[in-house]
Amino acid sequence: MKDHEARFRELGLTLPAVPPAAGAYVPAVRSGNLIFCSGQGTHKDGSLHYLGKVGQGLSLEEGYQAARLAALNCLAEICSLTGSLNKIKRIVKLTGFVNSAPDFHEQPKVVNGASELMLQIFGEEGRHARTSIGTSNLPGNIAVEVEMVVEV
Amino acid sequence: MKDHEARFRELGLTLPAVPPAAGAYVPAVRSGNLIFCSGQGTHKDGSLHYLGKVGQGLSLEEGYQAARLAALNCLAEICSLTGSLNKIKRIVKLTGFVNSAPDFHEQPKVVNGASELMLQIFGEEGRHARTSIGTSNLPGNIAVEVEMVVEV
Amino acid sequence: MKDHEARFRELGLTLPAVPPAAGAYVPAVRSGNLIFCSGQGTHKDGSLHYLGKVGQGLSLEEGYQAARLAALNCLAEICSLTGSLNKIKRIVKLTGFVNSAPDFHEQPKVVNGASELMLQIFGEEGRHARTSIGTSNLPGNIAVEVEMVVEV
Repeated sequence: MKDHEARFRELGLTLPAVPPAAGAYVPAVRSGNLIFCSGQGTHKDGSLHYLGKVGQGLSLEEGYQAARLAALNCLAEICSLTGSLNKIKRIVKLTGFVNSAPDFHEQPKVVNGASELMLQIFGEEGRHARTSIGTSNLPGNIAVEVEMVVEV
Repeated sequence: MKDHEARFRELGLTLPAVPPAAGAYVPAVRSGNLIFCSGQGTHKDGSLHYLGKVGQGLSLEEGYQAARLAALNCLAEICSLTGSLNKIKRIVKLTGFVNSAPDFHEQPKVVNGASELMLQIFGEEGRHARTSIGTSNLPGNIAVEVEMVVEV
Repeated sequence: MKDHEARFRELGLTLPAVPPAAGAYVPAVRSGNLIFCSGQGTHKDGSLHYLGKVGQGLSLEEGYQAARLAALNCLAEICSLTGSLNKIKRIVKLTGFVNSAPDFHEQPKVVNGASELMLQIFGEEGRHARTSIGTSNLPGNIAVEVEMVVEV
């Protein structure tokens, strides 16, 4: 098994604490070999970052960083069950919702912020199926929300 | 195994008939130990309730009630396969889409209507991963649509 | 096992090449007996078709055709792993996102374009759970995006 934890540290990354739940749910649930995590946004160091719509106030690059941060928070959720990134065998599915200006259609480039982080950390095991959706509203007016299904 | 049916009755709840499909699909499908249900809205007693956008015409409390009703309809879908709530071992994942006014960002508080119902009925087994998304449009102009994945 | 490939040919259908990924992801991932495919849109013969919002520029019938095309692209993704439609035991879950005019609420009739194709090809095994969502934005301004989970 590859040492995802070592690769994670090599990239200079630190696993954040799981952000506080915005409601009556838990960070992640395991069923069989799958873990479903809760949708995550742009919590960092106790507050929300990257607020507003991509393509209107926020640039594509800021959206990309927001997606990356949301994916990192998803990993924190998953590790709250597994204890280690090394237990993750495969990133199976990633879904990214992008808070979008009316004429913004580059959602895939935004969600690449999440996807490319998975490839950097997990390599082959990070190659996932993905859906990118644009929307008019997200909780707390965050720019991006990401959820994942992983195999352990 | 806990008696979820008894708890359901204690709460004064009644399982509705599965609302008629709005298209060419079935209420729920089982694969292995997982059941995926179809997205449900605010059908009750033969008509749609809670129409419109939360934060514009509908209050947060009305949105909460809409989410609770949608989740109850999801349980009806799942029981159309299982025959009983007692066969449900875990609510694994719940996703709520909220028909939202442009400046409404409290989707998690709305979707709590679905999540808190799961906790009331299933206790520990009702603790689920969750994603809440705001959107501009839902089928039939319902306020909330909910879908679930459960383990049996 | 039914011969889904034969039925597919009877319907006059041809499996398209998998459209190029819009980002850092793969067409589909298998975990256990489930395959999760990536969200697909309206690629055909090297370009995107059915651009814009259903109910504003695009008719319901055009939306239906867009959903059908997106579902066909999903099957191409799945077959890139399985090699054949005959390996698909069940269409488990289908989710359709419809790029919608502000007052358009007939998303289920649009997503029927995807669902009815599954029934035509797979018969009983094509009967799936489904969620239809309206949204304000999709990648590349496509009219419909579809994703599926299937059992093999």
